[in-house]
Amino acid sequence: MVNSTSSSSHQLQRVEINVDCGEAFGYWQCGPDEDLMPLIDAANIACGGHAGDPVTIRRTVALAKKHGIKVGAHPGFPDKVGFGRRVLAMTSEQAYSEMLYQVGALKVFLDEAGVPLNHIKPHGMWYIMMQNNEELNDAAMRAISHFKVPVYGMPNTLHESGARKYGIPFIPEAFVDVNYDSEGVLLGVPGSRKMTTEDIYQAALSLGKKGLVAAVDHSLIDVGVKGSPFTICLHSDLGTCRENVAAARKAVDEINKEFHSSP
Amino acid sequence: MVNSTSSSSHQLQRVEINVDCGEAFGYWQCGPDEDLMPLIDAANIACGGHAGDPVTIRRTVALAKKHGIKVGAHPGFPDKVGFGRRVLAMTSEQAYSEMLYQVGALKVFLDEAGVPLNHIKPHGMWYIMMQNNEELNDAAMRAISHFKVPVYGMPNTLHESGARKYGIPFIPEAFVDVNYDSEGVLLGVPGSRKMTTEDIYQAALSLGKKGLVAAVDHSLIDVGVKGSPFTICLHSDLGTCRENVAAARKAVDEINKEFHSSP
Amino acid sequence: MVNSTSSSSHQLQRVEINVDCGEAFGYWQCGPDEDLMPLIDAANIACGGHAGDPVTIRRTVALAKKHGIKVGAHPGFPDKVGFGRRVLAMTSEQAYSEMLYQVGALKVFLDEAGVPLNHIKPHGMWYIMMQNNEELNDAAMRAISHFKVPVYGMPNTLHESGARKYGIPFIPEAFVDVNYDSEGVLLGVPGSRKMTTEDIYQAALSLGKKGLVAAVDHSLIDVGVKGSPFTICLHSDLGTCRENVAAARKAVDEINKEFHSSP
Amino acid sequence: MVNSTSSSSHQLQRVEINVDCGEAFGYWQCGPDEDLMPLIDAANIACGGHAGDPVTIRRTVALAKKHGIKVGAHPGFPDKVGFGRRVLAMTSEQAYSEMLYQVGALKVFLDEAGVPLNHIKPHGMWYIMMQNNEELNDAAMRAISHFKVPVYGMPNTLHESGARKYGIPFIPEAFVDVNYDSEGVLLGVPGSRKMTTEDIYQAALSLGKKGLVAAVDHSLIDVGVKGSPFTICLHSDLGTCRENVAAARKAVDEINKEFHSSP
Repeated sequence: MVNSTSSSSHQLQRVEINVDCGEAFGYWQCGPDEDLMPLIDAANIACGGHAGDPVTIRRTVALAKKHGIKVGAHPGFPDKVGFGRRVLAMTSEQAYSEMLYQVGALKVFLDEAGVPLNHIKPHGMWYIMMQNNEELNDAAMRAISHFKVPVYGMPNTLHESGARKYGIPFIPEAFVDVNYDSEGVLLGVPGSRKMTTEDIYQAALSLGKKGLVAAVDHSLIDVGVKGSPFTICLHSDLGTCRENVAAARKAVDEINKEFHSSP
Repeated sequence: MVNSTSSSSHQLQRVEINVDCGEAFGYWQCGPDEDLMPLIDAANIACGGHAGDPVTIRRTVALAKKHGIKVGAHPGFPDKVGFGRRVLAMTSEQAYSEMLYQVGALKVFLDEAGVPLNHIKPHGMWYIMMQNNEELNDAAMRAISHFKVPVYGMPNTLHESGARKYGIPFIPEAFVDVNYDSEGVLLGVPGSRKMTTEDIYQAALSLGKKGLVAAVDHSLIDVGVKGSPFTICLHSDLGTCRENVAAARKAVDEINKEFHSSP
Repeated sequence: MVNSTSSSSHQLQRVEINVDCGEAFGYWQCGPDEDLMPLIDAANIACGGHAGDPVTIRRTVALAKKHGIKVGAHPGFPDKVGFGRRVLAMTSEQAYSEMLYQVGALKVFLDEAGVPLNHIKPHGMWYIMMQNNEELNDAAMRAISHFKVPVYGMPNTLHESGARKYGIPFIPEAFVDVNYDSEGVLLGVPGSRKMTTEDIYQAALSLGKKGLVAAVDHSLIDVGVKGSPFTICLHSDLGTCRENVAAARKAVDEINKEFHSSP
Repeated sequence: MVNSTSSSSHQLQRVEINVDCGEAFGYWQCGPDEDLMPLIDAANIACGGHAGDPVTIRRTVALAKKHGIKVGAHPGFPDKVGFGRRVLAMTSEQAYSEMLYQVGALKVFLDEAGVPLNHIKPHGMWYIMMQNNEELNDAAMRAISHFKVPVYGMPNTLHESGARKYGIPFIPEAFVDVNYDSEGVLLGVPGSRKMTTEDIYQAALSLGKKGLVAAVDHSLIDVGVKGSPFTICLHSDLGTCRENVAAARKAVDEINKEFHSSP
């Protein structure tokens, strides 16, 4: 089931699943990459900024290659103690150079393994700030455009408009293991409802079929993925991540099957 | 004078000069790169291991491009407090991955600037340990071979045999602002004679013409650069580095002129 | 002249001078501590956060002891690439713990040298943010109160009210090598007028005699130091820092002489 | 059972158990400190060198206080990627200053919590190198002597003689979840026999009763703890650490009970 839906080409399925991987650091482990990779389409690999180190990167690339999944770069603020989840006010020059540095470092491991760079997806607070901070978004997008691959991001934010401005293919992204508020703003784990695997399955199904998802207050909202291929992100650092990803996989496989068999 | 001898092509002159550059870190400065670049053929740019950060790397690449000099990668042990000059016992896997990471990170800034990677030259204790530690040398050379450029190193050490083993072009290197002992082992600044600019000029001239240099005890020794193109390394972190490099430049220009005008 | 005005006791003169010291990092140097120490009353020593490392701390403490000047802790955001001058959004728990950690680490070197901890003065963006961010200021002040020494800070900001709230003696601080705007907000070097040594001398004299200083637009403003002992901070990382500090020293000596000889 | 044998005083039982704690780093977790603390006498808390950060230190101190166990400092080489387990050739000055810095930083959290510093025990490669490297051992012991608490170490090595030289009380330490070779040299996990909980129980019992333990080749060896109070160290980063520590606890309780009830 999984092998038939995973794809190492650059062509996006109707709906895909991406997960952050390689977020260990030296001796310290993070998510169960090896368990999740068989269930996902694309791994976003940390680049040594918020997480990751050269050995971890290389091992994670090898693992992704073994599972035949796509690999994206997952650059984060250079702040390991804060795991890239704290505001760090980089200048434009710092943000631009940091993005080049981290993605460039990852890319050499992909070259070595013969795996193409599939996409770039900034991590944590960098991703969040880029939705609204035009200077930071511009600096990051200019750097991203150097690599000639798509960016994953939040539709209807500076992610999308910045990508278009710099000629970067934009893949919209939606979340199913945390909630949006009724205005479509993404909430973290603490602000979200407890999501069961059934909740996650239904959320993914609803996104794939109608482009709608239940917000934290159960209202159905449009998160901007209707009508286009998109990717669903799940967290690898939740205790239930294996079941969560499996539930989303089931929904995504059903969506893609229906899509491909439709006339 | 300088412009005519500096060369941005991959072709080595009879004798060239290389200097470590980009060894600032964030707010902290290191050598006077801007003053030295007009006088040298190749800059070895730190990659964020022992020194350097993304902004410093990018600015240093731009400076080297402006001066039309060659750029090499200068990877070092990931130990900023020790400036890469302390023994750090990396495993083979760590050394291999660290080399890929650092050179890969630098390379993206070269790609952005349209400047080719000219060579790789490990820094400080990494360079020293590779002369004798076969496991470390092998790991580093395997990683270096990925980039298809020459390595700068000490002749008649594992630098040279390791390069040959992994099919890497080897450019022998000699030093003129510090001394060798009578056995040809390189000494640091504390162990060396005080080198005047005249001493440095004479040392460079002697190396270029006869392949011999005066050791710390004034005995003339062969440091393995006779009969082949080679490169002279000078330190950018000595207070007298501007005069030192100018003195070596004068000698090197004379050597190259004689060489090119010989039948 | 200097020795007679410098003081190693905890008693504040009418006006004192403090300078950030020990802001080297490993191999990299920062300000000319050795030249400045004979001219100042108190050194704020970096603690390994934005700058400093164990060896640098120890050497700087020894230097301050040799010159018989007071030593304060100079904790900064743990961000060496940004030199503690970038916003880093620490949680209260992180800020509180970071403050304890850095000051505790410095204090052991003072204990070893038999030098008392004289004061605490947060660095750069931490200092700036504490003026307005109540949560951050509270966290820092709670940690500072543990050490039972005064804090140096900006009068009429949360620095002063926070210190009072946590029972910390507050020493008001004024700046003479950069400017305030007409509202009393401190400007950085780029926003300030070019300050000559005569400007600095006059600024210090005016502060000491009338509690007023010329803002960037030349209007005379009250920066909250009138009528109480206060300390003047000068930057050790300006190229003109030696002359700047000497000019301020001259003014401060005149002020203190007049003060002590008044009935 | 546990409460009666654990002790927060400085008095050593006949035999105690110590475990490395607080080896998380920012977001990344390490051993199950909360599960182990009820079973041990003393926690060695990482100080931000090989592991640990200010928040982790503070939380771990609070946890140890809650469980009423002794707290020691666990300084390590400043190398988080290598977890302090790689050779890092610090100079004497660096080693001395690093030791002061790390223990000083930990100590402030103990002061805040009202918990005394019970002992110091260097970590990983620092601990190993100090057994044979006289310069490094001297530098570390000189720094340790500043804190007026015992050091935990390997009997019959420079640990013991260095401690005596600098007037530091020495608590001999033995290991039961990894093996010694037949010469008494400690082996790591890879070189050791697979140790079952019964093996560990027997090893602890044998050490406590006869001062002997079965080496990797099953020969009984004397590891220098006969006749004196000593401490048994167990690893908190093994998957079986909970059972291992519980097994050692059972043996140690039996030994101490017999000891206290003997005439």
